[in-house]
Amino acid sequence: HINGERLWSRLMELAEVGEYDAHSGLRGVNRLALTDADSAGRQLVVGWMRAAGLAVRVDAMGNVFARRGGTDPDAAPVMSASHIDSVATAGAFDGCLGVLAALEAVQALDELALSTRRPIDIGFFTEEEGVRFGTDMLGSAVACGRIDIAHAHALTDAEGTTLAAELARTGWNGTHPAQLEPPHAYVECHIEQGPVLAAEGLTLGVVTGVQGISWQEVTIEGRSAHAGTTPTELRRDAGLAAARVITHVQELVDSRRYGELRGTIGQLRLAPGLTNVVAHQAILTVDLRNPDEEALSAAEGELAAYLKSLEEAGLTVRTKRMARTAPVPFDEGVQKAIAQAIEDLGHEFRHLISGAGHDAQEVAAIAPTAMIFVRGEYDGISHNPREYSTPEACHAGADVLATVLYRLANE
Amino acid sequence: HINGERLWSRLMELAEVGEYDAHSGLRGVNRLALTDADSAGRQLVVGWMRAAGLAVRVDAMGNVFARRGGTDPDAAPVMSASHIDSVATAGAFDGCLGVLAALEAVQALDELALSTRRPIDIGFFTEEEGVRFGTDMLGSAVACGRIDIAHAHALTDAEGTTLAAELARTGWNGTHPAQLEPPHAYVECHIEQGPVLAAEGLTLGVVTGVQGISWQEVTIEGRSAHAGTTPTELRRDAGLAAARVITHVQELVDSRRYGELRGTIGQLRLAPGLTNVVAHQAILTVDLRNPDEEALSAAEGELAAYLKSLEEAGLTVRTKRMARTAPVPFDEGVQKAIAQAIEDLGHEFRHLISGAGHDAQEVAAIAPTAMIFVRGEYDGISHNPREYSTPEACHAGADVLATVLYRLANE
Ligand SMILES: NC(=O)NCCC(=O)O
Ligand SMILES: NC(=O)NCCC(=O)O
Repeated sequence: HINGERLWSRLMELAEVGEYDAHSGLRGVNRLALTDADSAGRQLVVGWMRAAGLAVRVDAMGNVFARRGGTDPDAAPVMSASHIDSVATAGAFDGCLGVLAALEAVQALDELALSTRRPIDIGFFTEEEGVRFGTDMLGSAVACGRIDIAHAHALTDAEGTTLAAELARTGWNGTHPAQLEPPHAYVECHIEQGPVLAAEGLTLGVVTGVQGISWQEVTIEGRSAHAGTTPTELRRDAGLAAARVITHVQELVDSRRYGELRGTIGQLRLAPGLTNVVAHQAILTVDLRNPDEEALSAAEGELAAYLKSLEEAGLTVRTKRMARTAPVPFDEGVQKAIAQAIEDLGHEFRHLISGAGHDAQEVAAIAPTAMIFVRGEYDGISHNPREYSTPEACHAGADVLATVLYRLANE
Repeated sequence: HINGERLWSRLMELAEVGEYDAHSGLRGVNRLALTDADSAGRQLVVGWMRAAGLAVRVDAMGNVFARRGGTDPDAAPVMSASHIDSVATAGAFDGCLGVLAALEAVQALDELALSTRRPIDIGFFTEEEGVRFGTDMLGSAVACGRIDIAHAHALTDAEGTTLAAELARTGWNGTHPAQLEPPHAYVECHIEQGPVLAAEGLTLGVVTGVQGISWQEVTIEGRSAHAGTTPTELRRDAGLAAARVITHVQELVDSRRYGELRGTIGQLRLAPGLTNVVAHQAILTVDLRNPDEEALSAAEGELAAYLKSLEEAGLTVRTKRMARTAPVPFDEGVQKAIAQAIEDLGHEFRHLISGAGHDAQEVAAIAPTAMIFVRGEYDGISHNPREYSTPEACHAGADVLATVLYRLANE
């Protein structure tokens, strides 16, 4: 059993880094990747790792790893990691729970003086959220070979600052190559961030995989014009076109033609953005997701045709691919090991697919991988300051993680 | 006859203040009220006024006036003014044509050694565009008594800077009270900014009045949530709601239920504005216009009911009134004087109503007022760098203005 109180108090302490008043005293977390707040959060976690006697290494993407040695010097490690960067309206749990639960697992083994054959690697990846530099799971995608490091280093934030520059500025540009040696197995513990476990009264879930994720940036160019004098037929209104794209995406979802499609426009900026000027430019992001690759591609296709049709109205439309992952199934064997550990510890559970992207899906490309989900309260709301898991649920998730890691590390 | 070449060269020189490359070498003007660019534009125009032998006075709203004396010390002046502030995507003509044409009129009288019984006041008003501090015709509305100066001084821009602070910073906080002594008559020359004159092959128009203008800021509060995990029924998506408001406004226009309604959403900002976060807040502006007050009020009413209906979906909606003017009819006598001068100078014309707001509509509350419209090219496009009137059309408008001012000043 891990130390649930220490886990909880670390979660709460880490949540104070980048904390803000969402409103009426509701505390949120804003720790975008490689900001000063993220850097301070990293220092805090690295400090805990070092205090636990672990040596820390940082790679060229700013990914941070720490190893607890095993008895067999030739055995590949088992690994558990997640992320501590957050969106701008986050709670305390997304990512952090997995990082701190893995640290707890390692410390529990130390405290119980339990050795393992294989080393256990823990740590956290850079820019999992993708909201600062535009691509999610970025650090793990580079470390696992899907994304080229030069491409990642050149990505820019809204101010045009490159990731490489922010790595250098914050000092998290490590010297280790950003390439993960395939571990024996990878297990990640994470808050569900969705309503499924809570709806069924379950504390834990075994994750079968992650749905496909499609992110693109759409730029619509129209023509600025006077709001008071310009009749509809002379307008090329980029703002109106953007609104039609938003409602079109919602229609794709509502139609159920693409099964369990989710669609979100989270970003939209108009230029010049003035009350009495028809907008000449709209830039928006489209986040589409689907557990089924064929359905996801078909929805992307229908959206592309719709965007094309806007050109008939005198607008021009450009799209830029930000991120795209196919659905990723997790390893059956690791899922079984997790399910066994949950049962052995006396919890009920279900299998479920993840709606959110996770670093685990990148590691799945190079090693047997699966995830443990911990239930979230309030319909599982996440990317919102109300995100919450109980201390008991976090404790249960970390206990299962420790058990699975111990077993896999002795395989 | 005024000096058309000097008028044109001043228009072009003023357009270099705040000039920017809109794209592919197309030059635009960005001179938002009380920015450094606006202040530099003011210095340039005041320099021309002084060089023409005029004494300049600045009032507590930063409105600038200059007087050419008359022979009767007790006679009320005739007046002609406009504005030199611009939107962020402007051309060279909106406002500036009227200010420089009035200066030309006064200089032409000097050069012809023609005296008038009444003084002639020329000048420019502050923040006519309303795009920096949120209320259009602001300087003239204060000077003519519709808006309280304390209210105007406290208005803020997007950065929260007050108008009073910007007046002080730029040094345009004059000592004269911001209260216009009612002139004998007021005439303003302005580019049409719409397609009517060009469509009919006319150079000049007599403006019968200005349509009603309704500006409000709408704030929609929803709930941030994870884009990948949150099903539609658990979302309170402020961005989607904003898109529905935009398409609803367009439906109000397209339905023709409110006659010649125009509707524009020029500003829209989402928070937190991140790809994988359902927006918890949307702030947008709605610009509605109608020549008919009843139709304008009815459209506002239908929009208000629509906004109210969003609350059923768990969103909260607040509106803030930014600006509201009823349709303003112009004085028949001044319209006749303009029509007569146009005929005497050998031009054809038509009467038309203004789709854009103008300082003239504020002065209309305290003095007989009308306007001269000069045709714009390219469907009359305005609030766009392509805004253009020919040198000949500008010359014709200024000639008419000079003639009307001379006649009215001898009444
Ligand atoms: N877990 C999580 O919120 N990941 C961020 C990537 C995404 O799913 O948008
Ligand atoms: N003439 C002009 O563009 N005025 C700005 C006020 C408005 O009509 O929006």
